[in-house]
Parts: sequence; structure tokens; C-alpha cells
Amino acid sequence: MNASEFRRRGKEMVDYVADYLEGIEGRQVFPDVDPGYLRPLIPTTAPQEPETFEAIIEDVEKIIMPGVTHWHSPYFFAYFPTASSYPAMLADMLCGAIGCIGFSWAASPACTELETVMMDWLGKMLQLPEAFLAGEAGEGGGVIQGTASEATLVALLAARTKVTRRLQAASPELTQAAIMEKLVAYASDQAHSSVEKAGLIGGVRLKAIPSDGKFAMRASALQEALERDKAAGLIPFFVVATLGTTSCCSFDNLLEVGPICHKEGLWLHVDAAYAGSAFICPEFRHLLNGVEFADSFNFNPHKWLLVNFDCSAMWVKRTDLTGAFRLDPVYLRHSHQDSGLITDYRHWQLPLGRRFRSLKMWFVFRMYGVKGLQAYIRKHVQLSHAFEALVRQDTRFEICAEVILGLVCFRLKGSNKLNEALLESINSAKKIHLVPCSLRDRFVLRFAICSRTVELAHVQLAWEHIQEMAATVLRAQGEEKAEIKN
Amino acid sequence: MNASEFRRRGKEMVDYVADYLEGIEGRQVFPDVDPGYLRPLIPTTAPQEPETFEAIIEDVEKIIMPGVTHWHSPYFFAYFPTASSYPAMLADMLCGAIGCIGFSWAASPACTELETVMMDWLGKMLQLPEAFLAGEAGEGGGVIQGTASEATLVALLAARTKVTRRLQAASPELTQAAIMEKLVAYASDQAHSSVEKAGLIGGVRLKAIPSDGKFAMRASALQEALERDKAAGLIPFFVVATLGTTSCCSFDNLLEVGPICHKEGLWLHVDAAYAGSAFICPEFRHLLNGVEFADSFNFNPHKWLLVNFDCSAMWVKRTDLTGAFRLDPVYLRHSHQDSGLITDYRHWQLPLGRRFRSLKMWFVFRMYGVKGLQAYIRKHVQLSHAFEALVRQDTRFEICAEVILGLVCFRLKGSNKLNEALLESINSAKKIHLVPCSLRDRFVLRFAICSRTVELAHVQLAWEHIQEMAATVLRAQGEEKAEIKN
Repeated sequence: MNASEFRRRGKEMVDYVADYLEGIEGRQVFPDVDPGYLRPLIPTTAPQEPETFEAIIEDVEKIIMPGVTHWHSPYFFAYFPTASSYPAMLADMLCGAIGCIGFSWAASPACTELETVMMDWLGKMLQLPEAFLAGEAGEGGGVIQGTASEATLVALLAARTKVTRRLQAASPELTQAAIMEKLVAYASDQAHSSVEKAGLIGGVRLKAIPSDGKFAMRASALQEALERDKAAGLIPFFVVATLGTTSCCSFDNLLEVGPICHKEGLWLHVDAAYAGSAFICPEFRHLLNGVEFADSFNFNPHKWLLVNFDCSAMWVKRTDLTGAFRLDPVYLRHSHQDSGLITDYRHWQLPLGRRFRSLKMWFVFRMYGVKGLQAYIRKHVQLSHAFEALVRQDTRFEICAEVILGLVCFRLKGSNKLNEALLESINSAKKIHLVPCSLRDRFVLRFAICSRTVELAHVQLAWEHIQEMAATVLRAQGEEKAEIKN
Repeated sequence: MNASEFRRRGKEMVDYVADYLEGIEGRQVFPDVDPGYLRPLIPTTAPQEPETFEAIIEDVEKIIMPGVTHWHSPYFFAYFPTASSYPAMLADMLCGAIGCIGFSWAASPACTELETVMMDWLGKMLQLPEAFLAGEAGEGGGVIQGTASEATLVALLAARTKVTRRLQAASPELTQAAIMEKLVAYASDQAHSSVEKAGLIGGVRLKAIPSDGKFAMRASALQEALERDKAAGLIPFFVVATLGTTSCCSFDNLLEVGPICHKEGLWLHVDAAYAGSAFICPEFRHLLNGVEFADSFNFNPHKWLLVNFDCSAMWVKRTDLTGAFRLDPVYLRHSHQDSGLITDYRHWQLPLGRRFRSLKMWFVFRMYGVKGLQAYIRKHVQLSHAFEALVRQDTRFEICAEVILGLVCFRLKGSNKLNEALLESINSAKKIHLVPCSLRDRFVLRFAICSRTVELAHVQLAWEHIQEMAATVLRAQGEEKAEIKN
């Protein structure tokens, strides 16, 4: 395919994309396919000769679309949102065309420098403490990671390196393994599974701190665990505090946890993967209070800030991060690398290669403006409160956790079995899509405001549908009980 | 921006992309900017109000392009190629629009299933042993990772988990730390820095095996290291063999190394990040002989197979991989997950989220056809041999490593200082762009065939330019020597 065919096909694809997103409401949100549906529809080997674009785009509708879960449907209320916006898609096209691999400053200065400045823009939108910003010659600064999982792992590895060096400086006879055997990381029992994964990968023990009645990690529980572990000869070194947990969007108490970490010399990583976007609104910024105690902070603009995946924003206060991964083969060296003037992001992340992802931030921030982004967040929060109000009006249901941002956790009053049946009937009907969570062994339904185009009418329709499904499930349960009685 | 504005702007962007790539030869391959050039050109904070698309696209030319290293210029001969093709860009647009996060089968069945089938297609193109293919119900199968760095790390972690479980099954009193302290991984002294990084992250010792005269890892050196370490009470567990090293595209001897790993029960990971694409040509397939001994194999279609970054193809023979990361929170569970029929790729990788990257493979394989892809590889190899022939005709120069694929390592006969001066003069002139490597402490220039649009004429021009620069550098050296004499 040459440039002139690309001009034609590219424009057709732009229309296909616009058609898809404009018409997405008409597509069933969750697919009808069974596992293994796709293989029989596709040849067993790649074609020897080239095929036409027409043949492929036809297959997109025939083979791909029937198996797609439509995350951007206004009837998708599962997981958390994943961002999608036209400005981000335009920027991603440009990113693909430039196609530079920005592992070092020299590999494409614009790629590195725009990232640093965009992370400062975003940090200022969140009113992050100065110490997190790169500024003219800051010690801290931001980096775009692929996902929050990687950000947590990078923070844990940096903390592990830092504590190991400190202990070895004091006692040079200590081996890394002898230290690692005693290291303990902590996170709330509500923390995301990626925190546990980071512990597994880093080869350190991770302990779950029991959360309180509001599913928040508090000072007392953390302090108790620290004292017990220190008394047992272990070495606490790393704490992950979550702002906006995945199960129920609860918030660890940073203002309590932060000072403890500070006092004990523990690396505090704050994971606000979903909730972080909301902090650009002054009325939600208080949820981030205490971030000044953190060593690293992360959230995902690719969730709720209209920047398409992947774009996970991570800030670190100091340059400790880069010490963990610094390797300098000759083929990656360049003349400015030791100047102190530049950032080589390869030392900030797990992979070497990286896309020019900051273009997406630049396009989105400029084409929405801060006010546009704030309006978007506020709309989602209003919709979740609207859904909450609907649930509260129906006495058969209960709300299971405080609704703070765009997630409502709810259930039918009654058994887990009943609620499992409700979710099963909702997801089988495929008019809307939800996923569950477990809160203190209670099976709970999560209703997350996700789509960029979701409106009050969709939320109301979803609720009416849930009510209908509930009625059927309750009727079935009633009949079952009656049968047992008879 | 609504759909109708996206239709308009998207088409303008398609033209911008086509214009950029059609005109890339006219742009200076390496930018003129100094560190910190960008910040003063950009406001210090994000705008409050939305800006127009025109303003942004104007700034792309004014602010971004002057700082871009043009990886797709036919005068870019640095690092290794990074892939770029129109079909991949079209697929990436579709990927952005669907915007699903394919961490599990249920999160978008098409995303998971197309990936499995595309990895089979590609595996068959490479004539990988059946045990690496998923097939109808294979034990093995492929996964798309972001980068080769991640593939190496995933393999190392899986190997670490496997050996730990095996040793703990035999001796339950052994702690993980006690085991990790003794684990040793091995790679050639020519292996990529990402292998060392994987060792650092995984918290295990990595030993460099001295390569032979052709920069290859051989049986004897590996066997010697294994014996020495076992005698010292250490536990060898993991070997990375490289096919096509970054410095000079040398090949570890798989047919020697493989049987040793097999005999010793070591996990063998084969990293063919760059060279792997060439194995789709029958005449280069022999370079992969011995892969049947490997437990995992990886190469980057995003380097040399016309699939834009990121797309790193990794195969594993068995399902050992998933054991290392299996975590199942309720919010990610779905009804088919334990059916044995599906793949939840989140257990195969470090991050949780993932793009619908297999669309790029599907578009590229179909629009080029296997023959088109083979022709592309062959053209690059021919160009490197053409360059090699030019160098060999000039007795001032020497070739420093066998030219097998698209990389030529060469230097002026003489000191490192002389060659550093040559590279400095080439990269300062900015007509072409190269990076160096170090081979046995000799400073060597790398000439890698990179761009999709590079032709013989560009290679010849590049060589004439190098000759001119060499003449200047040699003259300067001569004058310096004369001065010293006087």
C-alpha cells in the first residue's frame, strides 16, 4: 500500500471509526459468541499473496465485531471506564506516523520533552506538590507508564533498591537475598490485584492491612502490622495507599497513613488509577490531601480523562526511581546523557521502547481545555448519584458503599445467591453489562459510569431493566421457596 | 469534538500523515535542538478553554517536528528498524476506536481470540515446532507483549516460579529467599541490556558467558560456567540465548546451548528481537534451528515485520507461564474462565490492560501476504550486503562482524579515537544517523538498514557521505600527527 492508497483507505477508516462510534448504541453491548468462535472463521495460515483492503474491512464486520465487548457503548457499566475521545485518536494517528521509539532523549527529543512538560501540566491540574514537578530543573517529575500495574511495580522495585542499598551501606556483609527475605510491603485488603502481582514479581512479601468499615486503610491497622513485623525481625519498606479502590471506590486515609510512612522511612506509593482524574475538579481535590507524604503517585488518564489507552501518569518526588534500572550499553549512549539537562525515560520504566504517548495528552488537554475535562468528570459523578438515588428509592435494594465518584455498589437485600442470579440474568439479557465485586464476602453489583456518551436516559433505562430483572429473580426465588414449603 | 468534526479532522490527519511520510526524505534525519528546547515554546499550564484543531496542528510543525528524530527517514541507519506500514496504521485506528481492554476473554472475546490465531499464523510462518502453537487445544501458544524486555522478564519470572516450586516440593523448609539467593541466570556477554534488567528486577544473579570469536555463546563456555556454579552450591535455572544481538547481529549457537539446557533442566528463552522477522524466509530459517529446545521464544514484529510498535511476539511451549501471575479478583472473573477453552492473557503478562494489537498483525499479514513480507526482508538484507561490499572496496575500512541480516558493523582501521571522531562528524552533519557499539573494547560503527522506503541510492549516498567524513577525519589526524612531529 502506497501513500496515495493510504489517503483513500485512511479516510474510509476515519468514516468507519466515526460510524462505529456514532452507531455504537445500536450494537449489543456484550457479544453472543462462545469460546473458540473465531478460529473456524479464519484461514489456518496467513495468505501467501496480498489481499485487498475491501476484503479485510468486510471481515471486520463479519468476524471481529460479533466478538467485541463494546466498552464505549452507553450501556457498558462494567469494570471502570477506559477513555476514548476523538482528539486522542487523532493524536494517536500522528504518534503512529512519527513512529519514534523514545527510549532516550536523543532517540527523539520532542518525544521526551513533550512528555515532561505534559506531566507538569497534568500535575498542576491536580495541584500536586511542587516536589513532584520537573519544572525548569526539578528533582522530581512525571513519566507515562503503560498501566498502573507497571507504575506500582516500578515504585516497588525502586523502593526495594533504595532500602537494600541503605541496609548494605550500614552492613556490607548483608546479601540482597538476606535483605529481601525480610522485606515487607503493605496495602489495604481492598487494593487491586496488581499490587499483589508486583509483590510476587519483586519477590517480596506483601501483607494486607484490614480496612475499616468504609473499606479504608487507617493508621491503627497499619501501625499494628508494622509493630508486629518489626518485632518479628522483618523490615517494612513499602506501602501502597489506594485512592478509589476497584471494588467499591473507597479511599485509604492518606492523612493518617502518610505521616506513619514518613516517620518509619517507608516508600509510600499512592495508586489512584481510576479516581485520579477527578482531582482536577476543586471539589474533589481534597480526596488527594496527604499526597505530600507520598514518594510516588500514579493515576490513569486512560481511564477517565479522555486519553485513549495506554497512558498511565506517574510522578516521583526524587530521582530514586532511575537508580533501580540504570544500564548504559554503548548503543544507547548519546552525548547529552550525563549533562543533567535531559531525561532518559528508559531508566524510569520496565520496557526499553516507548511510543510518543504525550501527543495524546497534548491534543486532549488543548481541545477540551481544563474546563471541558472538569465538566466531563462532573457529568459522570452526577450520573452515578442519579443512579444511586434511583436505587435508594427501591426498598428491595441497598447501597453497599458510599458513592463518591462514578461507581455505585448495590445489591438486592438478601443472599449472595440471589444477587448472583440477578447479575447472571442481567448479563445474559445483554442489554447492559456489569461486573460484580466482593465486599466482606458479600456479592455486590458494580454500576460504573463508563462511556463518554452516556446520558441520564441511558442510566434510567439501565435501572428500569435492572428492576425488571430483579422482579423476575425475586419471583423465581419466591416460587422456589413456595415449592420448598409445599 | 463530535463525530462529524472527527470525520473532517481525521481526514486532514490522514493527509498530514501521508504528506509526512511521503516527504520525510526532505527532512533532516536528526534534529538541531538542544536539551530543554521545547519547554519555552509551550505555555506553563494547560489552557482553561478549548483550543482549535488548527492551532494544534500548526504547533505540530512548529514545536514537535523540529525535535523529532525521523526514524522512518531513508537516511536513518541507527539502532534497529522500528516498523511502519500503512496497513498497520489503519489497523491501529480501528484498535483505538474499538478501544477495548483485553485482559480477559470476556472483556472482548475477539481481542483474545484473534491474538491466539494470529500468533499461530506467525508461528507457522516461522515454522515453529508444533509445541509452540495453540492450535485447536494446544498446551502452548503465543501472546503479544509490549516489548522484548517484557518477554524476557516474563520468561525469567516464570522460570523462577517453576524452579522455586520444584525445590520447595522436594524441601518444604526452603524459603523463597533462600532459593533466590542461589539462583543463577545466564546470557552471552553480547546479550541486550534488557536481560540484565530482567535479572535486576527478578532479584536473581545474572552471569555473562564469554562469547566466541564470532560473538556467539557456545557450549563449552556455558558448560564451564554451569559446572563452576553448581560446584559452588548455586542453582542454575535460566538461560537466554540471543539470535541477532544488538551490537553486531551475532547468533548464539542454539544447537549447542539447547541440549545443555535440556539436560540440565534449565529454562531456555530465545530472544530474537530483531532477527526473528527474517526467519519467515526459508533461506534464513536455519538460523532458528535449535528452537525446539527452547521453553519460550520471542521476537519483535514491531522491528522488522511492518507491524507498528508495540507488538512483541512471544511463544511458550507449556502453560508454566501463567502459574507465575495467576490472581483472580472477583471483579475480573467471568463464567468461561475455568472452562479450559479460553485464554485470559492477563496471566501471561506484567500489565493487566492491553490493546487490541493483533488487528495490526491481521491487516499487515493479509495486505502484504507472506510473499510480500519475505520480499521486504530480502530487500533489506540485500541492501546491507551492498553496503558491506562498498566498505570492503575501501581499504581504509574494515568489517567487524559477519554480515548476516540487515546490520553492518564497520570501522576505520585505526584507533577508537579516530572512529569516535568519524561518528561524531557523521552525526554532527546530520545527513544520516548512526549509532556505535563496542566489540571487545573496539569502538565500532553500526549501519542498520531501517526505513521501509530505503533504496540502494540512499545506501550509496550514505556511503559516499561516510567516505567524505572519513577523509576529513583522517586528514585532521594526519595534520595532528604532523604537528606533533614538528
